[in-house]
Amino acid sequence: MEKIVQAALLYDFYGELLTQKQKLIFELYYQNDLSLTEIGEEQGISRQAVADQLKRTEKILAGYEEKLKLVERFLIQKNVIVQIKELIETIEYKFELTDELIHKLEEIKKIADLIPQ
Amino acid sequence: MEKIVQAALLYDFYGELLTQKQKLIFELYYQNDLSLTEIGEEQGISRQAVADQLKRTEKILAGYEEKLKLVERFLIQKNVIVQIKELIETIEYKFELTDELIHKLEEIKKIADLIPQ
Repeated sequence: MEKIVQAALLYDFYGELLTQKQKLIFELYYQNDLSLTEIGEEQGISRQAVADQLKRTEKILAGYEEKLKLVERFLIQKNVIVQIKELIETIEYKFELTDELIHKLEEIKKIADLIPQ
Repeated sequence: MEKIVQAALLYDFYGELLTQKQKLIFELYYQNDLSLTEIGEEQGISRQAVADQLKRTEKILAGYEEKLKLVERFLIQKNVIVQIKELIETIEYKFELTDELIHKLEEIKKIADLIPQ
């Protein structure tokens, strides 16, 4: 997986467990797309200090993922929901269905979207 | 929710983030059903020390839930899967379906069970 996508997912799931400072630098780098030098200037610390803090934060996030596997589970879950919807669309396409039956199948698709992401 | 069920769910999700010692006392109390006194005797600490450690562990678990809401999400997710299956059973019961269509619907039920718990 692309590093930025992976970082964003890890941050989505575990960001709340970081300190304000860790969050800020992570967001400036990964979301606002600032360079290490720019972040250093803004925060009044060296480029190297920014790099060190980012590395540390990435390690913390990876540590949580190793223990809780939320990103991994989320990706499987997302895939299952896609599969359910595709199967329903196959059914709707392939079989002659009554309007009532189609309505029920559409309901299943909507309910599948209620699974918390 | 019953306290023991809630404790078990929190432990399932966040147990990996506890220390070995915290895990042990939590398990002896909630899973092995030992009394505070019995755990104290086994661990060579006072009943009060066991109670304090348990309280602290419960607070840590509740803190993670407050930030990550995994138990809450899990319960919603479980409910959605039940709803999907019930809807499929309603469809199978209510409509005259071909064997092929029933097969496809059964497939959806099986796929729904692949969502990681």
